[in-house]
Amino acid sequence: MPENTSEVSQIMAYCNQHNIAVTPRGAGTGLSGGALAIEGGVMLSTEKLNQILHIDEDNLQVTTEPGVITEVLQNAVKERGLFYPPDPASKGSCFIGGNIAENSGGPKAVKYGVVKDYVLNLELVLPNGEVVWTGANVLKNATGYNLTQLIIGSEGTLGVVTKIVLRLIPHPKLDSLMLVPFNSIEDAASAVSAIFKMGVIPSAMELMERDAILMAQKFINDYSLELDDQTQAHLLIEVDGNEDAILMSDLEKIFSVVEQFDCGEVLIAENEAQKNNLWRLRRVVGEAVKKQSIYKEEDTVVPRASLPELLKKVKLIGAEYGFRSVCYGHAGDGNLHINILKDSLSDEFWNTTLNEAIRKLFSEVSRLGGTISGEHGIGYVQRDFLDIVFSSTQIELMKGIKNVFDPNGIMNPKKIWK
Amino acid sequence: MPENTSEVSQIMAYCNQHNIAVTPRGAGTGLSGGALAIEGGVMLSTEKLNQILHIDEDNLQVTTEPGVITEVLQNAVKERGLFYPPDPASKGSCFIGGNIAENSGGPKAVKYGVVKDYVLNLELVLPNGEVVWTGANVLKNATGYNLTQLIIGSEGTLGVVTKIVLRLIPHPKLDSLMLVPFNSIEDAASAVSAIFKMGVIPSAMELMERDAILMAQKFINDYSLELDDQTQAHLLIEVDGNEDAILMSDLEKIFSVVEQFDCGEVLIAENEAQKNNLWRLRRVVGEAVKKQSIYKEEDTVVPRASLPELLKKVKLIGAEYGFRSVCYGHAGDGNLHINILKDSLSDEFWNTTLNEAIRKLFSEVSRLGGTISGEHGIGYVQRDFLDIVFSSTQIELMKGIKNVFDPNGIMNPKKIWK
Repeated sequence: MPENTSEVSQIMAYCNQHNIAVTPRGAGTGLSGGALAIEGGVMLSTEKLNQILHIDEDNLQVTTEPGVITEVLQNAVKERGLFYPPDPASKGSCFIGGNIAENSGGPKAVKYGVVKDYVLNLELVLPNGEVVWTGANVLKNATGYNLTQLIIGSEGTLGVVTKIVLRLIPHPKLDSLMLVPFNSIEDAASAVSAIFKMGVIPSAMELMERDAILMAQKFINDYSLELDDQTQAHLLIEVDGNEDAILMSDLEKIFSVVEQFDCGEVLIAENEAQKNNLWRLRRVVGEAVKKQSIYKEEDTVVPRASLPELLKKVKLIGAEYGFRSVCYGHAGDGNLHINILKDSLSDEFWNTTLNEAIRKLFSEVSRLGGTISGEHGIGYVQRDFLDIVFSSTQIELMKGIKNVFDPNGIMNPKKIWK
Repeated sequence: MPENTSEVSQIMAYCNQHNIAVTPRGAGTGLSGGALAIEGGVMLSTEKLNQILHIDEDNLQVTTEPGVITEVLQNAVKERGLFYPPDPASKGSCFIGGNIAENSGGPKAVKYGVVKDYVLNLELVLPNGEVVWTGANVLKNATGYNLTQLIIGSEGTLGVVTKIVLRLIPHPKLDSLMLVPFNSIEDAASAVSAIFKMGVIPSAMELMERDAILMAQKFINDYSLELDDQTQAHLLIEVDGNEDAILMSDLEKIFSVVEQFDCGEVLIAENEAQKNNLWRLRRVVGEAVKKQSIYKEEDTVVPRASLPELLKKVKLIGAEYGFRSVCYGHAGDGNLHINILKDSLSDEFWNTTLNEAIRKLFSEVSRLGGTISGEHGIGYVQRDFLDIVFSSTQIELMKGIKNVFDPNGIMNPKKIWK
């Protein structure tokens, strides 16, 4: 639990010299097992690197250590009227450093982009203990290779991030939230790309299928949202901005689109409490599924117009192999979280045959122009499937880069690749 | 002049086998000499790879070959109501592939970001002739290292880009343009960060000092803009959006800021012709300076609040070493183009002593948290100064990556580094 860059550097230099594996760990909320020390060695926690170092209101930037909770950082800059948009569902407990490691997204990504779109510069301790900055604190940079973007999403396999410089934007003053029920999940998914084609960019566009809502309601014991028998899926759609009139006009445009897709009665949140309730329902889905059964979560992402086809394939493959799935996620980005439930399936099926089904599913994702992780990373749990989306040439390039940073292979070994 | 990926692949494989240098070249409009075959060998032109392959209106994406002129691409997607924002001054002649190589920016970057913010996926021919895609056609990606971002801005030193997938956004319907004269260039620069602090994000925020305007007027022989004797600099500020009322409110907010900085009479363009005239004045500055004298252009970038300090240093160093400079550029991004004029200076001064002055200037840029190229790249002309912003460790990491892609060192040799 080092307390500063110098201590991280000393730990790394020692471990490098003695060939000891180092697994960096943020808050441990990751969904791909990247922070598990599967090879033993040193678990390097960033929890004491927890200071927000400087909020630069003149340049709309913040410099922070990696062990700051994402929501704490968001609230600190919001007090100055500033906005750091990426908001994973775990924002109340995850660390900003972990968000960098996984290139996290969240609901706001559809309008505001993901973590990689906000990182200007990183202080990085290399496996040999040397300390470098990856870039500069500027909005434009054409000076050498983009090491900053190489580190983002590298899942702790190239070095330890000890300082982070993020760009910020002015915080929008207003938002509106609507919940739209659909009689089929394909209709819900089809409405998504139709809305973007209208020229509206919502600040969130979340899809939840019926079971996701039912499980979430049970989990928080709140049934205030009435579910029509025919409703098979919901879209939770947020718009934001600084002018009421624009928000109203956006909502009207969205309404004119969704009513073409056999939707039910649209609910518009009337106050902050109602908004918070709807968002809470969405945010607990992951936890709620976990409570229901042992599960595996896939983090598929496709071009958004291919969502209806992906959903169909998920259910077809589920029917073929005999598993139940609950789908939800960031529909506006084409990022679908597919939770596969173990229910009463045998361990043997779960550990062997199911991998065939997942392989089939990921092959469909790849065929649709997508990939196997949108925001959770590959880590420990998805390593077996990397060959579906990468050729051996691509993998060798990435391993070559890994070797440049970490010739002894001590950084988070056996993650991303075996 | 290959006509497809397969021909590029065959050329590369042959050259790799025979250790022949390959210099990829777009339209040759670059400002850092990256497309010059300084080591001889093969000049690989992308001009026959000039097809826009697919405009995907469902997913707001376009797939294009690299030899398409940037403005041609912009106009093609605009016809479908879509917007590809990055717009270098050379947009009427430069190729989109060259924009990828240099991570180009342009005036719109201040609101919409640079090239790297729009590239989803690249088809890349490696030096050994193998063809890979760097990512997937998706908005979020946490699958392996970000090879896409590594290639952007790598100046043709890692491979040849043969296909490009860009994300697009809905085209804003309206824009307004204002020109604000200031009595000091420092006041103009100080107004820049004050405007952002008001919560307004203009779609362009360009700075031109007095000499830049004078030279541009002379160059196009159009003196319709009257320059007050006291005016030392102008800000050209654009706002865009879909609602007149919002644009008006943005202009008013900006006006309330600039009038605190001793500005002269603000000109608001009344029609498209006037807008085009003002933009033309800005876009020809580079050409106009070139006509004036032999010159060197520096592409400095700093956190935007440090612009006034940078400007002061430029003039101080100019006075110390006895050279004249013309400054202009993308003030909203902190990206200042500093044109140093040779005028009647001796060749000896120009080729030796001046480098000391540039070194001094770049050291100031680095001290201010900036870097030596915002959008032009390092290429051939800035290689000598790389040590100012990078430690030997950083350079070794980058060279290590280069070696992974190009072990024989045939790709655009002696660029970025010697």
